[in-house]
Amino acid sequence: MGFDGAMRAAIAEAERIKGTTYPNPPVGAVVLDAAGDIVGRGATEPVGGAHAEVVALRAAGERARGGTAVVTLEPCNHHGRTPPCVDALLAAGISTVVYAVADPNPVAADGAGRLAAAGVGTVPGVLADEVAAGSLREWLHKLRTGRPHVTWKVAGSIDGRSAAADGTSQWITSPQARADVHLRRAAADAVIVGTGTVFADDPALTARTSDGALYDRQPLRVVVGLREIGANYKVRNADSPTELLRTRDPAEVLRALGDRTDLFLESGPALASAFLRAGYVDRILAYVAPILIGGPNTIVDAVGVDTLAQAPRWRYDGVDRVGPDVLLSLVPA
Amino acid sequence: MGFDGAMRAAIAEAERIKGTTYPNPPVGAVVLDAAGDIVGRGATEPVGGAHAEVVALRAAGERARGGTAVVTLEPCNHHGRTPPCVDALLAAGISTVVYAVADPNPVAADGAGRLAAAGVGTVPGVLADEVAAGSLREWLHKLRTGRPHVTWKVAGSIDGRSAAADGTSQWITSPQARADVHLRRAAADAVIVGTGTVFADDPALTARTSDGALYDRQPLRVVVGLREIGANYKVRNADSPTELLRTRDPAEVLRALGDRTDLFLESGPALASAFLRAGYVDRILAYVAPILIGGPNTIVDAVGVDTLAQAPRWRYDGVDRVGPDVLLSLVPA
Repeated sequence: MGFDGAMRAAIAEAERIKGTTYPNPPVGAVVLDAAGDIVGRGATEPVGGAHAEVVALRAAGERARGGTAVVTLEPCNHHGRTPPCVDALLAAGISTVVYAVADPNPVAADGAGRLAAAGVGTVPGVLADEVAAGSLREWLHKLRTGRPHVTWKVAGSIDGRSAAADGTSQWITSPQARADVHLRRAAADAVIVGTGTVFADDPALTARTSDGALYDRQPLRVVVGLREIGANYKVRNADSPTELLRTRDPAEVLRALGDRTDLFLESGPALASAFLRAGYVDRILAYVAPILIGGPNTIVDAVGVDTLAQAPRWRYDGVDRVGPDVLLSLVPA
Repeated sequence: MGFDGAMRAAIAEAERIKGTTYPNPPVGAVVLDAAGDIVGRGATEPVGGAHAEVVALRAAGERARGGTAVVTLEPCNHHGRTPPCVDALLAAGISTVVYAVADPNPVAADGAGRLAAAGVGTVPGVLADEVAAGSLREWLHKLRTGRPHVTWKVAGSIDGRSAAADGTSQWITSPQARADVHLRRAAADAVIVGTGTVFADDPALTARTSDGALYDRQPLRVVVGLREIGANYKVRNADSPTELLRTRDPAEVLRALGDRTDLFLESGPALASAFLRAGYVDRILAYVAPILIGGPNTIVDAVGVDTLAQAPRWRYDGVDRVGPDVLLSLVPA
């Protein structure tokens, strides 16, 4: 198997466990034997558990000797809650280590250097852009900026409305689009709405399968705003913890959730516009239904753009159909 | 060559001349010799000229004998400005006629029946849906409804704005998107705007290449509204005829342009919303730039939807990237 194919298998491992590794990065790994066949797969275990390489090495056992480890992130070289992955790779007799993204964390870094010094071949940068834009995006963002990564999810019509004139908004988008949102909630560290959304829609904000069952993992639920949320609202039920943040300031929200990595903002126009004006939206996921609504209920109101030349440019990093809807994914250009 | 492949070649012929055949349908044809190789291609000539089959038969000459004609529309069986295509096919010794869409025009119809009666094999319906939704869409719509087909083109942001708060709108979308619009203008029978667009943007509404040269064929330019348009506006220049329609009523616009087939509506929110409320938009082409603008300038205002359940459903029949933008194409669901 070529390195690209093996890295894709490692990426698939990482995607599978995204959201479960906080505060560690979601990493995937495969081990190839000397003949180039995959003999072990692994991904980061929940905090305190093993790192991806170690899980894959365990699965491979003796077949790892003389083989290749393929990892989405450069193997770590420090004692944290677990011993350095570099030690495990050397002990297993791996002869080559292939990785996508270099570890930018100075504490963990130069795993590759130590491997090379020990006579192990290292191949950096395989599918690095794909991993950096995908499974490691939020973790890398946090490391670079010190802030959690914010994905703003919005469901609207092709004319940018989120509700009809009478306020009806359920459901603009399809069951397939809503299922996709629930999957993403399950992978996020926290889901954020404003009090307005709670009063208007009374969402549970849990991550559920299409038959309503809760996913094993639930994000923290966060309600932002100055108004009281009575205990009768679904967001206050026992299905997942809920935090009420008595502010309207996005900077305060990010500070309060500063120990998280991956935030999923599902707010209405007021809070979303505040995050956008502050420059705190790092990805837009726009589910666009094939419908025109018109009228006053736009998905955002003022976002700080008075003249066209001021408007920040984004770029599409994904354009996909989701059932009858389209999902536009955008990142800063 | 299989019939599907040959029909795709015929479709390509039709697409090439779309917009030049008014009031005739834009039809494409290829002729296969007895061995199945393409020996002739053709498309409908401008009015008074030959139909597609005849052009393709001429190109094939004697090689057509015993061969197959593949046509996007059932060959006609009536004397109009030209003799029936069925006669030409029989005279050329064609042994099989393959076509996509049956001719719904009662005057021209049963070409296939006459061919069969003369001992020619007929294969109807090959890629019929593709042709009916594509090159023949506007012509079939006109025949079915008696009204010209209206494509509403709109360029906006992902939040459904067509201009910033100060009115700036040039350019929300990319040069690639604008080039795509000019190609579509060149294929349309008429381009329609309201007086508001003329006063705001002073567009020429001609079809131009990216270096500003005029395409050979120009659509009729139509300005709708009650205000005077001075001779200094570009839409009044000599590059193409311009019609001023002193009305705000979409039904009157369609009546005034009732001898046309393919109308390209490029108006602002007021006129577009009026067409939408009246149910006179048959296709939406939304060029969506990767940008958020916010503020008051939405691509449509009220479209007659008070509550979500009332909103007419559309469906995406195309989702494509055009340079940095996305082109969403929608037809009624």
